Amino acid sequence: MSNPMFESVCKEIFPFWDKISESDREYICQNSHDALYPKGKNIHDSSECSGVILVRSGSLRLYMMSDEGKDITLYRLYRGDLCMLSASCVLESITFDVFVDVEEDSQCYIISGPAFAAVSKRNPDIRIFALETAVSRFSDVMWVMQQILFMSMDKRLAIFLSDESTRTGSDVITMTHGQIARYMGSAREVVSRMLKYFANEGIVEVSRKDIKILDKKRLRALAL
Amino acid sequence: MSNPMFESVCKEIFPFWDKISESDREYICQNSHDALYPKGKNIHDSSECSGVILVRSGSLRLYMMSDEGKDITLYRLYRGDLCMLSASCVLESITFDVFVDVEEDSQCYIISGPAFAAVSKRNPDIRIFALETAVSRFSDVMWVMQQILFMSMDKRLAIFLSDESTRTGSDVITMTHGQIARYMGSAREVVSRMLKYFANEGIVEVSRKDIKILDKKRLRALAL
Repeated sequence: MSNPMFESVCKEIFPFWDKISESDREYICQNSHDALYPKGKNIHDSSECSGVILVRSGSLRLYMMSDEGKDITLYRLYRGDLCMLSASCVLESITFDVFVDVEEDSQCYIISGPAFAAVSKRNPDIRIFALETAVSRFSDVMWVMQQILFMSMDKRLAIFLSDESTRTGSDVITMTHGQIARYMGSAREVVSRMLKYFANEGIVEVSRKDIKILDKKRLRALAL
Repeated sequence: MSNPMFESVCKEIFPFWDKISESDREYICQNSHDALYPKGKNIHDSSECSGVILVRSGSLRLYMMSDEGKDITLYRLYRGDLCMLSASCVLESITFDVFVDVEEDSQCYIISGPAFAAVSKRNPDIRIFALETAVSRFSDVMWVMQQILFMSMDKRLAIFLSDESTRTGSDVITMTHGQIARYMGSAREVVSRMLKYFANEGIVEVSRKDIKILDKKRLRALAL
């Protein structure tokens, strides 16, 4: 095989890897490539079949976009995560368009959509894996939808700040209000107003470019 | 088999029916029952496993609900449609809660969730079918989300009225403004205001209990 590193990643990520034939494994490897993506790059655009994306490092943001260019983050992908929604030719029942941007410099493996689809036609285990990956993301998206449509803004912002702090392992969140608003599918003004409210309550300290969490306990209580 | 009618329905709806063993077919039939549901009844509630619901006549409405009782319609099910999201024990990757109400008196078949899950463990074709059904609903839900989050209200209402008129084959839509708002995940006030605007434009004629479409052409143009 051309890339033993890629094969070991496949073995780690795909539960079906040892169950499929050696020729199918080889076929997948031959139709895959490494990619280094700089922060900010758009790597998947609406309904084209960009292939199955495997994240090795960095992070990707998956979002939907309106005709007017407004976007809503659906979820992010980190090391070890797999993007099936970028491979519309594998899952024909996926008929909506998503976009994928690089959020931090990322190293990825891209498996060609048609190659993955061909092998999955021969192997029900692969088809089940691909569908289950998509269905579990369905749950993520429903969660986002519930947040946006039903939840009050203070709770949503508290959850966002808590999650972000847990993810980065830091009490300082280095993002502008506009960036936070975009992630939350909200307006900058709304986020700024709520941050000011949190600051007045002594929960956070706000500057132009970052937010420092002062009272984790109260932030968590708000997030419940 | 106890119910030849049910078996013929299964044959019609399930592409895997002829591929599974006779004992599996019998097992599904033995763990299924007829149900007649009156309009208005709630037949599935959050995350319990109510089973796979097969609609024979009438219609069901699937929706999500906030803690405060606000609901958003995700999609409706008609004759021949299948509800997998009510069978959370079949699809473990579905972790969100949905509700199902009877919208018109309905005749359904209910297949026990654990029985369906047991048979699908033995038959990859069933598992693939169940997952594909769920994934195609994912596309429906994304469409709703796009409508609610991105589209302007006039466009959304025009689409709703057009679709409803096409579905019922009538120019008169017998629904209150509150009902329409609930289907659209909006407020009654917003719907009433927009309907008044449509009426002023001569597109519809509005009374307390129904809406008559006067200018289909303009309504369609708004819906584009």
